[in-house]
Amino acid sequence: MFKVNTNFQKLPGSYLFSTIGKKVAAYSAEHPDSDIIRLGIGDVTQPIAPAIIEALHRSVDEMGNASTFRGYAPDLGYDFLRNAIADSDYKSRGCDISADEVFVSDGAKSDSADIQELFAADSVIAVCDPVYPVYVDSNVMAGRCGIWDANLEKWSDIIYMPTTAENHFVPEFPSKTPDVIYLCLPNNPTGTTLTKLQLQEWVDYANKNGALIIFDAAYEAYISEADVPHSIYECEGARTCAIEIRSFSKNAGFTGVRLGFTIVPKDLIFDGVSLHSMWARRHGTKFNGAPYIIQRAGEAVYSDAGRAQLKEQVGYYMNNAKTIYTGLQEAGFEVYGGVNAPYIWLKTPNNMTSWEFFDYLLNNAQVVGTPGSGFGPSGEHYFRLTAFGTYENSVRALDRIKKL
Amino acid sequence: MFKVNTNFQKLPGSYLFSTIGKKVAAYSAEHPDSDIIRLGIGDVTQPIAPAIIEALHRSVDEMGNASTFRGYAPDLGYDFLRNAIADSDYKSRGCDISADEVFVSDGAKSDSADIQELFAADSVIAVCDPVYPVYVDSNVMAGRCGIWDANLEKWSDIIYMPTTAENHFVPEFPSKTPDVIYLCLPNNPTGTTLTKLQLQEWVDYANKNGALIIFDAAYEAYISEADVPHSIYECEGARTCAIEIRSFSKNAGFTGVRLGFTIVPKDLIFDGVSLHSMWARRHGTKFNGAPYIIQRAGEAVYSDAGRAQLKEQVGYYMNNAKTIYTGLQEAGFEVYGGVNAPYIWLKTPNNMTSWEFFDYLLNNAQVVGTPGSGFGPSGEHYFRLTAFGTYENSVRALDRIKKL
Repeated sequence: MFKVNTNFQKLPGSYLFSTIGKKVAAYSAEHPDSDIIRLGIGDVTQPIAPAIIEALHRSVDEMGNASTFRGYAPDLGYDFLRNAIADSDYKSRGCDISADEVFVSDGAKSDSADIQELFAADSVIAVCDPVYPVYVDSNVMAGRCGIWDANLEKWSDIIYMPTTAENHFVPEFPSKTPDVIYLCLPNNPTGTTLTKLQLQEWVDYANKNGALIIFDAAYEAYISEADVPHSIYECEGARTCAIEIRSFSKNAGFTGVRLGFTIVPKDLIFDGVSLHSMWARRHGTKFNGAPYIIQRAGEAVYSDAGRAQLKEQVGYYMNNAKTIYTGLQEAGFEVYGGVNAPYIWLKTPNNMTSWEFFDYLLNNAQVVGTPGSGFGPSGEHYFRLTAFGTYENSVRALDRIKKL
Repeated sequence: MFKVNTNFQKLPGSYLFSTIGKKVAAYSAEHPDSDIIRLGIGDVTQPIAPAIIEALHRSVDEMGNASTFRGYAPDLGYDFLRNAIADSDYKSRGCDISADEVFVSDGAKSDSADIQELFAADSVIAVCDPVYPVYVDSNVMAGRCGIWDANLEKWSDIIYMPTTAENHFVPEFPSKTPDVIYLCLPNNPTGTTLTKLQLQEWVDYANKNGALIIFDAAYEAYISEADVPHSIYECEGARTCAIEIRSFSKNAGFTGVRLGFTIVPKDLIFDGVSLHSMWARRHGTKFNGAPYIIQRAGEAVYSDAGRAQLKEQVGYYMNNAKTIYTGLQEAGFEVYGGVNAPYIWLKTPNNMTSWEFFDYLLNNAQVVGTPGSGFGPSGEHYFRLTAFGTYENSVRALDRIKKL
């Protein structure tokens, strides 16, 4: 008799962004003429850069020609892309990462969710609070997080590391040692980050305690300050304790194109087992490679023209971030993030809950953001706005907020 | 202290096709001038059809334009594609499947591997023997198959259903009732299939025993005989017992383009839990949708021009299948499959093992096939050739084999 994986049923309610979608749809239905500005979900709005469009057209033509057609891609990614990544994202920054430690995938979300397949069933994970929900939910689905406490809004077996204004959004070493530590830096949702020295302390902590760090660097392209590391491999000793996940979604607008990669260094050996070999086996068994044309698009990200165009695109979003950040400050809000990340994290006014502020903003300014509490209990009384809208909408949204 | 998922270490040796790749590479290195013909891995060789190339160019242009750019796709797939699939693959065949029961993915391999996330940890799975390795390996990685017996070449907790010439490649109902039954029809690797009446018996068996059928219909486009079902939903009662997985790899040559889909009917309720809701949650948490441009390519598969061009493409490969099948018969081999599938399954001559025949064929005819034993112990003394090469190579390969 078939029985389901009952871990799915432990997951509370529905996914954060579906709830937001439903609330916005309901508001739109009641106010069909309303002009809603969406600064909620982290989706980009600028079109794909010309150099990448050219690469896509070129590779599409190759696929239509018998002499240049490509069938199954290598499971782990084409060498042309793995080399470009290793050279441009790592070697050029002095990080000792080789092309065959790069695993190309269909995106950072898949990798963030799938990476837990490498962990023992009873592994204890530590996450920042607030946190990108995928880390937790993917572990819950695998039966790893214990019981959901609806009052605390916490899982019994997860170690939460609060990051709030009180500790300047720097997670503290937990009292119980975790087996796995998820770090997303620059952070989603808070938009804050750590300096290289602060991250080095986490690398040292992990190496000392035999813990594995899952380092999500999806927002690396938005770093503007010199002492903020772009990769965890800028820290000494990271090759023996850290996996790094990267995305093309935010640096090149690939949210609808789908491409990402994960770095699994060959020095990651636990109990004599190589995580590099395990991840290769995982990819070989459960994945069939990213599309050839999309991998060529990824390669174009690293071309001279691609770099120049994307620098401009990231600059455009960062200008939005500045507009939102400054505008919120002028309106009297307590504001964080936005300097090394496309996310602006604000304290809700008048002790409103995050969802109260969501409703307030939707009803009174027709601006959609993301309630901080949706990312964890320590996100309560915070709220996330993203810089991924258009400049015009960012300005208009702030004009409305200032008038509240 | 981090501990790995030790289930990975239970997997014996390396993946079938990697081993073949290494053997071929070694042969090539020793015989640099050899002209090797590859009829091994199920990869296609014909370029993407013009109607699909046009759709790709069109959607690439949309992505380069701010007014038509698309960010995150709906996790479950764009409506234009889900509707095309529901209408063309199901409703037109009288199958009661609606668009919101179609889950678009990056390919059938991912879905085949990931679908086990819905099963309880102690589920007992049944597979045909020989079998596509992904079904088994993905369950092993999740700790579900017991212990590997290297002598029997079987997992202690898997139910194997032999399909050999002796039972005309029709699996028999196992003595112990499984929780999950994987059926791939038309079959990979044997190229054989079941009639609608024979499949109906499996649907009845599953409904009677409360089992779930995972029906892999990746080769559906190759069916030429009238009494062979294209979908399991042609059978009465399949909506309450079956999930169907489909691919664009073989009907449209998308092995390097990556697109597939899975049908999870809303009537699949076990212990009050909807598998449709579970799979939606799974996609929402662990997947970010297939690329927009690739989904437009999928849509073009169902256009009038696309259909006409792909009918010709499938016909081309089926002509290869006929060439190989007939040629092997003429050469005195015992041959199966090849009529409703692109795979030809032959009995090795002189009681050679599958790997002995692999080496024999590589060394004496420079033809690469796939050893039947790589798909399971009942595949021993069989060998798979695929029709996915060019016509010229299919003819040349058979000329060489006939001369052996």
